[in-house]
Parts: sequence; structure tokens; C-alpha cells
Amino acid sequence: MAFARIIAVMKFCSICGSDRIEYRIPEGDSLPRHVCIGCGVVHYQNPKVVVGCLPEWEERVLLCRRAIEPRRGLWTVPAGFLENGETVVAGAARETLEEASARVEVLSPYTMISLPHISQVYLIFRARLLDLDFAPGAESLEVRLYDEHEIPWEELAFRTVTRTLRNYFLDRKTGAFPTRVSTLERKARGTAPAALR
Amino acid sequence: MAFARIIAVMKFCSICGSDRIEYRIPEGDSLPRHVCIGCGVVHYQNPKVVVGCLPEWEERVLLCRRAIEPRRGLWTVPAGFLENGETVVAGAARETLEEASARVEVLSPYTMISLPHISQVYLIFRARLLDLDFAPGAESLEVRLYDEHEIPWEELAFRTVTRTLRNYFLDRKTGAFPTRVSTLERKARGTAPAALR
Repeated sequence: MAFARIIAVMKFCSICGSDRIEYRIPEGDSLPRHVCIGCGVVHYQNPKVVVGCLPEWEERVLLCRRAIEPRRGLWTVPAGFLENGETVVAGAARETLEEASARVEVLSPYTMISLPHISQVYLIFRARLLDLDFAPGAESLEVRLYDEHEIPWEELAFRTVTRTLRNYFLDRKTGAFPTRVSTLERKARGTAPAALR
Repeated sequence: MAFARIIAVMKFCSICGSDRIEYRIPEGDSLPRHVCIGCGVVHYQNPKVVVGCLPEWEERVLLCRRAIEPRRGLWTVPAGFLENGETVVAGAARETLEEASARVEVLSPYTMISLPHISQVYLIFRARLLDLDFAPGAESLEVRLYDEHEIPWEELAFRTVTRTLRNYFLDRKTGAFPTRVSTLERKARGTAPAALR
């Protein structure tokens, strides 16, 4: 994912240019929206989907060390925003190609994590690396395979990554990988060390 | 889902009001975006998530007959756009309450259907009805339970609903309901009858 996504206060209507934007509940609706008093259009805002892969090669998984903010220098699975016109599987494979130059067979949806405080939904798929010709993409400093005992738990970039990897190594003991649905709320101040999250 | 979502051409910057909007690939990006030449902001647009439930009661499933366009008068599972600040499970339960006045226990993600031509992702969950006190919400004409042999296949509102129900009755034979990932492309002209889709 290359760019921070600005969720800005809407000051002008993108359709008619009016500055008469009110944040109120449209008739027949139940939630407040940005409504243009000039042309009447309702500007909906909805959550974004982050798609990615947990690529496997035998007993190891592929992680990328981020070359960009946020969390530059920390490790993540390849993942980023789903684009318009794209399927979730195509998006997960694209991000893996972009960030790790890696080709995968996308297997099945694994973690589905809601982050309501930032209006995002993570969909991380299990995937099988097709070859070992991976390399850092423009957004990665380093890409490598990790055995379970080597995972840098204290240097993971996001809680979604920690949770996905923890689920994965637990599920691997049984060999069953159901889609795991969960929520991550806003992080409290004074959180536990990463290893306990 | 109460309102059509307008994916409009962006004519004005919603941040600074400038009409100098170009649709081009920002530096370092790989896809064209609406970029404001006035203030430099990049206006990203991303797919929307539709969440819903397939509510079960013993051998039957709950469907709603739509009171609103599109597809007024046809049958659907309760579903609608995920809202900012909401988890996927909360959204699926909310839509079920709004459209069918029904309370459910959301069980597991069932169909995950990408519709790239309209930049939507459907996430339909299996769910268990908690009681039989359901009733049409403002967006439904009628709500009822259907046995498999009663499903109005020719009067289903959306292909996502047809696919979800077909998968469901097939999977019910084995009792295993893995998350089923698929894509629905733009419908070709002169399509097969709904029963064959």
C-alpha cells in the first residue's frame, strides 16, 4: 500500500462545487452523511478493504520488511488496499507481486479482521508460493522466508499481521484453516508488549 | 441498503473546491486517480463492502421481498453496505434487523463474492435466527422462511443471492460450509434463465 488515505472533512461538493455541505441524516436514512445543499447529492463514505496473502513455502512463510511509513523497518505480510474493478483474490495476488515480487496461488480466505476505528476490513488469504524468485518490491526493504521459531514477533508492523500469524501457527497443528473472523479495536494507551497482543 | 451509491465523475476537489481535477497516475503510483492540481490531494476511490446474512431456522432460510429499487418485488437475503465504524459481523446483523426485524447469531462467513464491474465485495454470513418474531422492515414488502423446494429461484433479486443459496443447499448435503470465494462478472446480454446462472 503506497499512500496514506486521507479521510478528510468534506468542505466542497465534488459534483457541483458548492460549499454548502451539511453533515446530517438524509430523509429515510439512519446515519449522518455529507449532504450537498446545493445539488442535493449525498456523499457516502464507506470502509476500505485491505487484501493480502500469507504465502507459504513448505514450513516457512514469507514476510516483507516495510520500506515506507507507517511502520517503516517492521515486518508484514504483503497487503494493501483493494482497487476498484478488482476481485479480492486478484488484489491479494497483486499486492504480493508488488511488495515481494512473488507469484502465488491464492488458496483460501484466512483472517477477516474488522478495524472499525479506522473503517477498514482486512482479508488475508493463505497462499502458496509458486517459486523462490522473490525480491523486495519498491515498498519493501527485505523479503524473506521465516520458520515459526524465527518470526520476529516484536518487530511486526501491524496487529493484523500478529493475529494472522498467531492463528496460522495454531491452526497448523491441526491442519484445518477455517476463515477466522475477528475485530481489532483502537489500541489502548499502555498496551501489553507485542508478544502478548 | 437504502440508497443507490453514486460513483460520479469528480468535478471539484472536496477539500479545496478547485475545479482543476485531473485523472492521472500520481508519482510513485501505478493507477490513475482523481488528483487536485489546486491543493495536490489525491482522491482515492475503492470498492464497497456489502454485508448480509443467510438466516437459518431449522431446515428453512429467511428471505426478504424488496420494497425498493433496484429489483423491487424480488427476493433477497438481508444485506447492505457496510458502514464506517462498523465491523463486518455487526453490519450483517444490523442489515438483518433493518430489513427483516430479525435477531440473529452470526455464525461464519459463507460467500465472499467479488463484483469487479461495480467495485463491490459481498460478504454473506451464515446466521441462526434467535426467534420467529421477524417482520418486514421499511425496505421489505414481505419476509418469510423458505424450505429448499420452495425457493423462488426465478424471483431472486441478485445473482449473489442465487449463488449463495445454491452453494448453501449443496453444502448442506455434506454439513460443511467453508467460506466460498467467487467472482461475478458483468452480466452478458442474452443471459441464461436465472435457474441456470
